Amino acid sequence: MSKTHTSESKIAFEGRARVVIEEVAPEIDNGRFPIKRVVGESVVVEADVFVDGHEKITPVVLYRRELNKEWTEVPMAALGNDRWRATFRVTEIGRYRYTIMAWVNHFQSWQFDLTHRPDTDPDLTMVYKSGAELIKKASVNVTGREAEKLNSAARTLNGSASLDEKRRVALDDEITDLMERYTSRQQVTRYDKELTLVVDRERARFSSWYEFFPHSCQGNQHAGFRDCEARLRYAASMGFDVVYLPPIHPIGRAYRKGPNNTLTAGPEDTGSPWAIGAKAGGHKSIHPALGTIDDFRRFVGKAKEQGLEVALDVAYQSSPDHPYVKEHPEWFRRRPDGSVQYAENPPKKYQDIYPFDFETESWESLWHELKDIVGFWIGQGIRIFRVDNPHTKPFAFWEWLINDIKRQHPDVLFLAEAFTRPKVMHRLAKLGFTFSYTYFTWRNTKHELTEYFTELTKSESREYFRPHVWPNTPDILNEYLQFGGRPAFLVRHTLATTLAASYGIYGPAFELAENRASKPGSEEYLDSEKYQLRHWDTNRPDSLKDHITRVNRIRRENPALQSDWSLRFHDIDNEKLICYSKTTDDLGDIILVVVNLDPHHRQSGWVDLPLEMLGVHAEQPYQMHDLLSDARYIWNGTRNYVELDPQLSPAHIFRLRRRVRSEQDFDYYM
Amino acid sequence: MSKTHTSESKIAFEGRARVVIEEVAPEIDNGRFPIKRVVGESVVVEADVFVDGHEKITPVVLYRRELNKEWTEVPMAALGNDRWRATFRVTEIGRYRYTIMAWVNHFQSWQFDLTHRPDTDPDLTMVYKSGAELIKKASVNVTGREAEKLNSAARTLNGSASLDEKRRVALDDEITDLMERYTSRQQVTRYDKELTLVVDRERARFSSWYEFFPHSCQGNQHAGFRDCEARLRYAASMGFDVVYLPPIHPIGRAYRKGPNNTLTAGPEDTGSPWAIGAKAGGHKSIHPALGTIDDFRRFVGKAKEQGLEVALDVAYQSSPDHPYVKEHPEWFRRRPDGSVQYAENPPKKYQDIYPFDFETESWESLWHELKDIVGFWIGQGIRIFRVDNPHTKPFAFWEWLINDIKRQHPDVLFLAEAFTRPKVMHRLAKLGFTFSYTYFTWRNTKHELTEYFTELTKSESREYFRPHVWPNTPDILNEYLQFGGRPAFLVRHTLATTLAASYGIYGPAFELAENRASKPGSEEYLDSEKYQLRHWDTNRPDSLKDHITRVNRIRRENPALQSDWSLRFHDIDNEKLICYSKTTDDLGDIILVVVNLDPHHRQSGWVDLPLEMLGVHAEQPYQMHDLLSDARYIWNGTRNYVELDPQLSPAHIFRLRRRVRSEQDFDYYM
Repeated sequence: MSKTHTSESKIAFEGRARVVIEEVAPEIDNGRFPIKRVVGESVVVEADVFVDGHEKITPVVLYRRELNKEWTEVPMAALGNDRWRATFRVTEIGRYRYTIMAWVNHFQSWQFDLTHRPDTDPDLTMVYKSGAELIKKASVNVTGREAEKLNSAARTLNGSASLDEKRRVALDDEITDLMERYTSRQQVTRYDKELTLVVDRERARFSSWYEFFPHSCQGNQHAGFRDCEARLRYAASMGFDVVYLPPIHPIGRAYRKGPNNTLTAGPEDTGSPWAIGAKAGGHKSIHPALGTIDDFRRFVGKAKEQGLEVALDVAYQSSPDHPYVKEHPEWFRRRPDGSVQYAENPPKKYQDIYPFDFETESWESLWHELKDIVGFWIGQGIRIFRVDNPHTKPFAFWEWLINDIKRQHPDVLFLAEAFTRPKVMHRLAKLGFTFSYTYFTWRNTKHELTEYFTELTKSESREYFRPHVWPNTPDILNEYLQFGGRPAFLVRHTLATTLAASYGIYGPAFELAENRASKPGSEEYLDSEKYQLRHWDTNRPDSLKDHITRVNRIRRENPALQSDWSLRFHDIDNEKLICYSKTTDDLGDIILVVVNLDPHHRQSGWVDLPLEMLGVHAEQPYQMHDLLSDARYIWNGTRNYVELDPQLSPAHIFRLRRRVRSEQDFDYYM
Repeated sequence: MSKTHTSESKIAFEGRARVVIEEVAPEIDNGRFPIKRVVGESVVVEADVFVDGHEKITPVVLYRRELNKEWTEVPMAALGNDRWRATFRVTEIGRYRYTIMAWVNHFQSWQFDLTHRPDTDPDLTMVYKSGAELIKKASVNVTGREAEKLNSAARTLNGSASLDEKRRVALDDEITDLMERYTSRQQVTRYDKELTLVVDRERARFSSWYEFFPHSCQGNQHAGFRDCEARLRYAASMGFDVVYLPPIHPIGRAYRKGPNNTLTAGPEDTGSPWAIGAKAGGHKSIHPALGTIDDFRRFVGKAKEQGLEVALDVAYQSSPDHPYVKEHPEWFRRRPDGSVQYAENPPKKYQDIYPFDFETESWESLWHELKDIVGFWIGQGIRIFRVDNPHTKPFAFWEWLINDIKRQHPDVLFLAEAFTRPKVMHRLAKLGFTFSYTYFTWRNTKHELTEYFTELTKSESREYFRPHVWPNTPDILNEYLQFGGRPAFLVRHTLATTLAASYGIYGPAFELAENRASKPGSEEYLDSEKYQLRHWDTNRPDSLKDHITRVNRIRRENPALQSDWSLRFHDIDNEKLICYSKTTDDLGDIILVVVNLDPHHRQSGWVDLPLEMLGVHAEQPYQMHDLLSDARYIWNGTRNYVELDPQLSPAHIFRLRRRVRSEQDFDYYM
């Protein structure tokens, strides 16, 4: 090895930046994807931060809106084992950045060292002089009274004051604070990534959706948007805040499907709303039978009056009659005979649907046009899109589309309807979908629900995957609903609304407890509205609408139910009973839910609660107020008895009230 | 939102590369740091790889030596749930790169689709034509017989052959293979990082170190290197392969420490070898009392003749008498009175030691000089360095030094002596240290050992943190050894040698069971060799050298003990007994160790073995051959009895021998 000399020794980085920052959390896929929050929420940032040797360090979290250049700085606190944490709150929708910075804090190191020296240390005079040097160096950045304070401290440390006096000045709080603020930061280590955070409006965290087919709003005649206004009032009366419509565009004639998905449709058959496009237009047009674009705008306005937001369906596929097929033949795949390749999943064929060819040479114009469809409906006042089968279009396409739309309209929300493999669903959530359909429909036992919702609310994926749960959809009538009778609908609705802050039902099929499947073993509805009109009598006395109304009100009145991370399952000694709680951070609102998962039999058991975690003294009784039945119970200690008869009510939604001293403390005692 | 048009629509990336690659493992800190292997070992690479839709994909691992440009490609196999895996073996020391590439496999997708079509599908002719098109497209890359094969297949699929014949051709193995090889890869996704792998020689995984102070090799007179040749033969006779020497450089006089770390040294006192530097020279010189550089080279040669490699100590600090202090005053920190700041950790003072100031303006020249020290000793034939207190020098410095040295000398190994906080130790391992001292010394109970060695051998850290375990060092005489008598030494030696493939002892203190501490509660040796000469009678009849010799031979003869990842702990129903196994991958060598952790009392219990995992049929007896005592036992089933008397032998090191049909199968039966 050749000798090297000082003169040849340029090293291409700052070797004196000694602090190390690693294991930053939250950080999704090495910062490749953003985390998500809604306005008002907090971000807790942690990292391992340390330096060689024994010196003290100062790590801070930096954050800013992406539009701003100025960073806000938050000091991190030591958690032990070289882990540090800081929290900040986001207040505006849009994109934020955050990262970490740290440096050696020489003054703090000096103070720490000082406190470990005995008064007999012969070096003390020298040590105080070192401190004075640090203070003088910092004081050049300061003016006025603060400069005077620092200079006076430096003089004391340098002078002939007593050791006690020097020590007092050296450890003085204001000096410590001034030194923290004014010491020039040298050899700062900055984390090598700026991480991204997307902040949405509150509806991204808490929403209650009502899906319905506008064509069926007046029974056996095709309804138009004006006929649907009563349905809006109806949805609003139940306490929903979003109405979601299947596609509202012209429907193709070619290969139109008849009732119950038969291959031949009569002239009166409606066809599937997902077979988009006809002579009357495509994805930017309204089905003539539903009305005009003005009718639609009026409908959106009427919804708004009722406190409802309209969500539209985005289904990127065409019927053979879609104008695109002629205008943009390059966006479709051809078969060897020159015909357009329709959708197939052998042995199934969907001749009424042409998928887009995302491998086309003309992919860029296709992408732009598809994004333009979303832009068009944003222009009509729509801010929520439910995306049909996003997992069959390229991930890069969605990431580009969603980010581009949200940079211009950060209030737009996208719901991913991807019932597919877990990693695909997670990728879609990471790349930008606001929320995601889940496996909830197929999670029916206590074990399944506990596992799944623990994963959804406790694993790192909660940073980007916001669950949106549906007891039913037009495509899924789960067998639990098919065979559990009315109690099954109550059970699934209670679970959906209390396990998840965002949920939806497809009605009126749901509240009318429609449970007839197209055939045994199928999850398709018999006489599905996907292919025909249905008359729904929403005034039927057995409708679940009162239960739904009550639960939606409980959700609005209890902030604990408006977010998901606090969910915690509790022991109950009966496999048919499930018990869990949700709380606000300050424990000001504590909701405890017990559900009898058996729709056929009465079940009872003993609940076991971690009282300390819920802020309840083990020796004091507490009140459990069932918000469903309005009954109130006094509970004592950790173990208490519950019994639920599905024919009466299959669930308790308790609000826990603490600090009950006697029965006279209850407002209803008089 | 403004309308966009095809003509304005350039997108800055290839939107048709649809495959996604994520969650690659192993990958340390997002690829910031390399993983480690030794020659002959395998690298198992896994990743989540998937595409939108239902098409088939082909993912491959690419790897190459960093010096080469050519990648080697290894197909990955599907593990389910979108996880893929491939394995490759490394054969050369030095740096490698690896990454992943994947693309949509249109021909396989077509084949899969074909197998799901019924013979009655009216589109079959068209489908075969599509296949023929794919084959024709691939065939343009092919010549000769293979081209003929492909063209003939295309003709068959396009022609009037029977459906059966077409199907046979479409799914033909050779066609599948040719299509795999020759189809042009389009829209390939390449993982966005090239990951690094450092391959070391075998000694990085398996080594037995013997540390001794050369000054004490001839009793009460200061020895020179020539006097140490007998000690080399002695170490080799016990089966060690590395001898490690504390610093061999001139020792400062100023503030020299006397025996037992007293502040005043007499003229005959040796001083601490870590107080480096005197008139006779610094880090590139030899202590005159030890000899000349030629004596040292002769010593290294003699070691080599005995099969021993010499490891040197790298301690970056100076005595006040080091030539650096005058030649490079800019490398040291000054106190306010202009004197050099000595080492302090208040209230402790180390006036005989000047640390380097790594925050000096002249840090670049300091770094180069320190690296040059290592280069100098490499020039003297040294390839292993034990680095003293690396955690008190900047991480960036070590990363730069080690990588630079290893790029030129990939056979050089560095052992980090960092007894400090876990994250600091891990960072040093990640940035390049070959192996690391551990907390082994302070892990004495069954629970502690199980937890710690499970973490070392099963967590991701095993990819970069190679444990090097020491029952004692000149700085650490653990209280277990102080109070456990001779059995404690046997126990700790057996644990070190069988839990870890790399270990070392500080002798002859260890084999002579030296257990006198400097004072109660201290881990310092009384009359430590760090400050004085010691006479060691290595022929004492109670020496552990026979045990050590036997265990070192067992380690050499049993490859299961030469690496760490196979370690597995087994149940045994006595808290004082610990049981674990190590195996080769092919289960050709199975070592089961049982140790009595109680040095005072006989202990017994029932071992519970996972026979299936060890390849043993539950119904067949198997032989346990204790390689320590040479006794053999027949065991049956999962539970078997053991009993260990610390006064006789506190451990079994069994070799398990399978497929014993009767006692006559044993070689010793006759």
